[in-house]
Amino acid sequence: MLYPNVETFIGCDSSYRAASIVLYGAPYDSTTSYRPGARFGPAAIRHESYGLETYSPYQNADLTDFDIFDSGDLELCFGSSESALADIQSRAAEILHDGKFPLLLGGEHLVTLGAVRAMVEKYPDLHIVHFDAHADLRDDYLGAKLSHACVLRRCHDLIGDGRIHQFCIRSGDRTEFEFAAAHTEMHKFDFTGLAQLTEQLCASKVPVYLTIDLDCLDPSCFPGTGTPEAGGVSFLQLLEAIRTVTKANIVGADLNELAPTLDTTGVSTATACKVLRELLIALDKGWPGFQV
Amino acid sequence: MLYPNVETFIGCDSSYRAASIVLYGAPYDSTTSYRPGARFGPAAIRHESYGLETYSPYQNADLTDFDIFDSGDLELCFGSSESALADIQSRAAEILHDGKFPLLLGGEHLVTLGAVRAMVEKYPDLHIVHFDAHADLRDDYLGAKLSHACVLRRCHDLIGDGRIHQFCIRSGDRTEFEFAAAHTEMHKFDFTGLAQLTEQLCASKVPVYLTIDLDCLDPSCFPGTGTPEAGGVSFLQLLEAIRTVTKANIVGADLNELAPTLDTTGVSTATACKVLRELLIALDKGWPGFQV
Amino acid sequence: MLYPNVETFIGCDSSYRAASIVLYGAPYDSTTSYRPGARFGPAAIRHESYGLETYSPYQNADLTDFDIFDSGDLELCFGSSESALADIQSRAAEILHDGKFPLLLGGEHLVTLGAVRAMVEKYPDLHIVHFDAHADLRDDYLGAKLSHACVLRRCHDLIGDGRIHQFCIRSGDRTEFEFAAAHTEMHKFDFTGLAQLTEQLCASKVPVYLTIDLDCLDPSCFPGTGTPEAGGVSFLQLLEAIRTVTKANIVGADLNELAPTLDTTGVSTATACKVLRELLIALDKGWPGFQV
Amino acid sequence: MLYPNVETFIGCDSSYRAASIVLYGAPYDSTTSYRPGARFGPAAIRHESYGLETYSPYQNADLTDFDIFDSGDLELCFGSSESALADIQSRAAEILHDGKFPLLLGGEHLVTLGAVRAMVEKYPDLHIVHFDAHADLRDDYLGAKLSHACVLRRCHDLIGDGRIHQFCIRSGDRTEFEFAAAHTEMHKFDFTGLAQLTEQLCASKVPVYLTIDLDCLDPSCFPGTGTPEAGGVSFLQLLEAIRTVTKANIVGADLNELAPTLDTTGVSTATACKVLRELLIALDKGWPGFQV
Amino acid sequence: MLYPNVETFIGCDSSYRAASIVLYGAPYDSTTSYRPGARFGPAAIRHESYGLETYSPYQNADLTDFDIFDSGDLELCFGSSESALADIQSRAAEILHDGKFPLLLGGEHLVTLGAVRAMVEKYPDLHIVHFDAHADLRDDYLGAKLSHACVLRRCHDLIGDGRIHQFCIRSGDRTEFEFAAAHTEMHKFDFTGLAQLTEQLCASKVPVYLTIDLDCLDPSCFPGTGTPEAGGVSFLQLLEAIRTVTKANIVGADLNELAPTLDTTGVSTATACKVLRELLIALDKGWPGFQV
Amino acid sequence: MLYPNVETFIGCDSSYRAASIVLYGAPYDSTTSYRPGARFGPAAIRHESYGLETYSPYQNADLTDFDIFDSGDLELCFGSSESALADIQSRAAEILHDGKFPLLLGGEHLVTLGAVRAMVEKYPDLHIVHFDAHADLRDDYLGAKLSHACVLRRCHDLIGDGRIHQFCIRSGDRTEFEFAAAHTEMHKFDFTGLAQLTEQLCASKVPVYLTIDLDCLDPSCFPGTGTPEAGGVSFLQLLEAIRTVTKANIVGADLNELAPTLDTTGVSTATACKVLRELLIALDKGWPGFQV
Repeated sequence: MLYPNVETFIGCDSSYRAASIVLYGAPYDSTTSYRPGARFGPAAIRHESYGLETYSPYQNADLTDFDIFDSGDLELCFGSSESALADIQSRAAEILHDGKFPLLLGGEHLVTLGAVRAMVEKYPDLHIVHFDAHADLRDDYLGAKLSHACVLRRCHDLIGDGRIHQFCIRSGDRTEFEFAAAHTEMHKFDFTGLAQLTEQLCASKVPVYLTIDLDCLDPSCFPGTGTPEAGGVSFLQLLEAIRTVTKANIVGADLNELAPTLDTTGVSTATACKVLRELLIALDKGWPGFQV
Repeated sequence: MLYPNVETFIGCDSSYRAASIVLYGAPYDSTTSYRPGARFGPAAIRHESYGLETYSPYQNADLTDFDIFDSGDLELCFGSSESALADIQSRAAEILHDGKFPLLLGGEHLVTLGAVRAMVEKYPDLHIVHFDAHADLRDDYLGAKLSHACVLRRCHDLIGDGRIHQFCIRSGDRTEFEFAAAHTEMHKFDFTGLAQLTEQLCASKVPVYLTIDLDCLDPSCFPGTGTPEAGGVSFLQLLEAIRTVTKANIVGADLNELAPTLDTTGVSTATACKVLRELLIALDKGWPGFQV
Repeated sequence: MLYPNVETFIGCDSSYRAASIVLYGAPYDSTTSYRPGARFGPAAIRHESYGLETYSPYQNADLTDFDIFDSGDLELCFGSSESALADIQSRAAEILHDGKFPLLLGGEHLVTLGAVRAMVEKYPDLHIVHFDAHADLRDDYLGAKLSHACVLRRCHDLIGDGRIHQFCIRSGDRTEFEFAAAHTEMHKFDFTGLAQLTEQLCASKVPVYLTIDLDCLDPSCFPGTGTPEAGGVSFLQLLEAIRTVTKANIVGADLNELAPTLDTTGVSTATACKVLRELLIALDKGWPGFQV
Repeated sequence: MLYPNVETFIGCDSSYRAASIVLYGAPYDSTTSYRPGARFGPAAIRHESYGLETYSPYQNADLTDFDIFDSGDLELCFGSSESALADIQSRAAEILHDGKFPLLLGGEHLVTLGAVRAMVEKYPDLHIVHFDAHADLRDDYLGAKLSHACVLRRCHDLIGDGRIHQFCIRSGDRTEFEFAAAHTEMHKFDFTGLAQLTEQLCASKVPVYLTIDLDCLDPSCFPGTGTPEAGGVSFLQLLEAIRTVTKANIVGADLNELAPTLDTTGVSTATACKVLRELLIALDKGWPGFQV
Repeated sequence: MLYPNVETFIGCDSSYRAASIVLYGAPYDSTTSYRPGARFGPAAIRHESYGLETYSPYQNADLTDFDIFDSGDLELCFGSSESALADIQSRAAEILHDGKFPLLLGGEHLVTLGAVRAMVEKYPDLHIVHFDAHADLRDDYLGAKLSHACVLRRCHDLIGDGRIHQFCIRSGDRTEFEFAAAHTEMHKFDFTGLAQLTEQLCASKVPVYLTIDLDCLDPSCFPGTGTPEAGGVSFLQLLEAIRTVTKANIVGADLNELAPTLDTTGVSTATACKVLRELLIALDKGWPGFQV
Repeated sequence: MLYPNVETFIGCDSSYRAASIVLYGAPYDSTTSYRPGARFGPAAIRHESYGLETYSPYQNADLTDFDIFDSGDLELCFGSSESALADIQSRAAEILHDGKFPLLLGGEHLVTLGAVRAMVEKYPDLHIVHFDAHADLRDDYLGAKLSHACVLRRCHDLIGDGRIHQFCIRSGDRTEFEFAAAHTEMHKFDFTGLAQLTEQLCASKVPVYLTIDLDCLDPSCFPGTGTPEAGGVSFLQLLEAIRTVTKANIVGADLNELAPTLDTTGVSTATACKVLRELLIALDKGWPGFQV
């Protein structure tokens, strides 16, 4: 008896029933203004993960120690953002309803809005921690309210002032930085301030959504993204940030903006896979002794 | 005194006032379902045209003999097809109003709908000649009515049965071929029937819109497109088809679906440039003696 | 309730029990002497098939009309050909034992030997029809008896003179052509003689194994292969050859030597997908009226 | 009324009359000895700049606050260095004559010589600050006096000892390092010494020409250049160096050796665009509070 | 005892003394106006030839049957055409003086002029047979008399009217076609007329130089060249043309304009290798029975 | 008189007799489990070295000051690891027998085993210093004992506990890290501990074999390798490590796992060339004053 070909992120072969974390992919990039290709991100992460070990020497833990389920990619309608966001929200709500942790793989950053809409219904006091090169705070982009360049602004519409915490930001127009000064907590260029914020989030026990735009990484280690911005953080800095922030009460997360075909060396995809492995392990429990 | 940097398709440096043909680009590909990148097509054609001669040995004529104006690219809103189509329609209408011939450079094939909407207002009895690998006759694609896979179906909504003439079609789902059997004139695989059709179009003097999806070409000579389909026509066959059909009363045209970054050799872009040169010359007047 | 991510060749979603044809992949290329990468072939064909329609306008049939099962890829040991061949033979034998048709996706051409070993056990009077740019008739290659350059010679060891029928051959050393003159039926350069051979095979009703090295195609339409050889056949010629030879009593088949990363345009993979679709349909039944 | 397609570096849309800084491109690379392609640099910087914001969070300033004019590329004769240099010199002289700041975009590094010839006529006491991986101090290269490998040596011919200040140098033959020890001020490997030099230049108020070979950057962040040299500086180090040296009396500048097609990720071009944005802002005025 | 690493075109390992044909490479492309890279041609042909068989099934002959010597590449001065041409002429003259057949590997097409200067000294009544997409008949290109776009014009300066025979030409400005009508024998688009010309050349026994610009091939099979031109001949057509024209009294030859890095599939280089193998065999003797 | 084309690593043109260091290449990668291509490493290093200077400003020394011989690549049998290892061992033994230093260029890391087998025969008390991202300590990989993932484990079979010293390790399965804890001296992530180890090795004067897997470098500066692992060391850190460890009694060395075609920018190959230059100089004598 032969079985059909199942393809999941490496080491994520729990049953849905047993799983504590559920991966779901949103291969959408219709509003990307510069270079499209993030639609290919989740499939590439899943496919190339077979070049990765399940064991992390950084956290001395193994993906196979945990119960993680990979539900594959949603089939989204290119060209209709509202329809795509509805499908994402619905999937996130289902996972939340079943008492599991939803971990979204983008796609362009707009997909975060679908997940956040579902999160806010369950957690009205949600905070968002946002790692990104771009502020994503425009009110509209060439007339579109639903654009990857506006996604944190739309989140702000939902959760209001003082609850969005931004790190690594190094690109935006002047009005976005002015908006941030008034309405969000923005840390430019790197992770300065993250440890202090995490302490506050831990103390208050508020629910936190973590959204990671992989272009927070420097283009030297992550060129495969739509709008690369020189001057970013290193892989080890991101790793440390993930291990820091996951001490807070994270209730949902996403990883987005890998555009794998833009980097033919495959390094960007391999790096995204490793970030996901470390994120999954860090979310599952807080490991002591980061060894770098 | 120095002048700003003007970039047009080679040899298209007439003033707008004097021009008989006006180029306009629509860098849009948000509904592309498989591989995006057609947004980069019109700029690539314009930029790489400096590697082309203005003289055509096939038609013994030179682009500089004619009055052609290149108005550059529209700034379109990614992620909102209706908004993008409105901008395209408006530009086409302006060109038509000024008594000039609008020649649209896509972008994905959906952009054709914007132009056809403007054409139909001026020419209610419009026919469409369609060169393409794909039927593009779906009623919707994953729920979207405005998709590159539906564009000829939307044109059919506007102009009705028996006025769409399709050539080179070699891909589609079964229902599209069934729709074509009932509502359009479809020629599969190549240009068989084009000479006869042209005679009829010439005799009836009806206004004709010519839409060329460059993926009608075989992927061996044109790999740089979103959905390449083996088994297409050669460059010389396309050239002959253009010289044939332009004997009819062509009142508008477009060239689309070059996705230049998908072909790093640059051959697809160079070929698109040459197709555009030959199309411009053939439109301007009917040259005798195709020499292949 | 969510389901794990199943990835098959498009339209091949029958159950194993119901299936008449079973796909199995052999991602192996350790003996490739020039440019490796065929190991990535079967996964690429499966993954990129979502850009393909299930309907064939050439054969007016649809993959979804048939019962085909995709069992995914074997996990083979790189660097040990004997071990890899044993695993392939075992899988082929299991499929044959269950009364189904085994269709192998390579991988380098050596994988054919694993399948043929299983076929010969069931069909001692097996003939092989071989489409390839290369003779693959060396007795050894740099000392190795198990090499992609020797695979038809090893098949000859198993089935003997006059039962290997080669087409499109345009590369080899002089001794291979001399061996062919004495021991196989070789047709150089193209498919001349295939119709006549098929008539003989049909008349004798002998069981036939069909092995297609995709480098029989011209590099213009199929550059993504380890050793491209100028002067090959076109996609339409291959399509016609497939529709011709499948009138014989084909009992097993393979498609190999796609090295997808060597062709960054993706055209080679898209073409391999279409060849596989047409092969599956042609194998399932003999359709009249090839329309080119 | 439609307008022709004007393409400038983003935010550089002043009139020539109003402009204080004038960009001019020199798409020349005929003497490049290893890997050509720098000829495509200026057009790529201009074209890809639309993916960049005009606002700099590093300097809290916006390109649109300033008056900058982009005069496009010179049409240079490939294969004749003397002729190309004459055209560059003439353009630089015209800009200087009109009381504006000439900012040259290369091209290979030899183009600097054309600009320096014009600068020296106006500023006989010119100093040159040189950021580069290579010493460029050969007296000839395979017999050619006019080669990118000799360009600073030719500048030394014009301005003499002690007036060339070199930074980041990590490649050259032994004689070049010996020449530097006797005739220039060379700082190997990084920007050590730049702050001190700048103080001296400020104190003396001498006119300074700044020439930036982008290969001073490490290949990890800037692979798209003819001769990449491991061990370079980071983007943030270069940014800081630019903000330091622009406190001196800079009277002309250039940015060269981007070879965009060598880096298909597009990161090198995006980085060059950002370096140019920061350079333009830093030149326009000295902003306090660099925030990294 | 170990030996140093010798790298020649496959099968060309005769001693210089014994050789009848001598290969020499001219890695020069400084005057290339569009896309450089032909400088890498000869080394790529030599290096990648190990993927080729020495045996030709087309001519039933083997490179190892002949005495061919590969002298490697000249070290030419980039940026000085006159100097490079002098070195090429000197090498060609030396080979001619030693009574051997010089076969030059370019490089851009300008290198032909160096060889032709040497040929004309020995054979004042030289004819040139020229396979190319481009007329190469400009009197100057942006002021340069020595440019790849002028090379046949410079040859005409040397040998005069009626002795240049051009085939496959499909690009040029109008004046070049007018010059050809008056001064050369030009066959547009393909090899029509070659058989007839060869008969005349055989009858008159004049010495003939054969210059093959590989861009005569269609870009579908040869994209790796500086200025690809759609509408060219196939590999098999070129093969037949080579076997036809080599019946004449060929006294020298060249193969040029492979730019290997422009085609990352490697197909262009592999095709150039095969063209060279077939040319070497055809030159060595006239084999009967071309089998396509 | 013309000479055949000799191609060596730049500056390595000593005679074999006079040489103290002998380079030999092992273009083998049949057991590579993820992405093949290391077979192309040694030829690429040799070919691209002409873009490198022979002079090192880091060590103020020149390759031409030393006597180094490049014996080219072995012709190895793809698909048979035991046969390939025997050929490598034999070549290493010959070089050792002649009293010279063998420096092996891989190829995949398995090739090290061939060299170590020869080294151990001559130096039974051999230690191994190992720079790598991967532990390479599996007992078998999918059943194969001879795999690149097992190579240090096979070395351990030969030399036993406490004599393998590993640095930069950041990937492996859990059992490999457990094996290392018991049997080797492993330093995770970077070169911490190398200076101290070197002192011990110097004091004991034991013979040391140095094996450098270039994937110890961060993928940002070295993407061209089969299994890139984020979080590696920089070029300057590797340079310093090489200059440190070469103070010990190094008796043999290798450099492996460059897969040049995976990095189309060429930076990985250029970096490998520079690492080899610095390694050769550092091995030849211990230079004071590393200047970074």
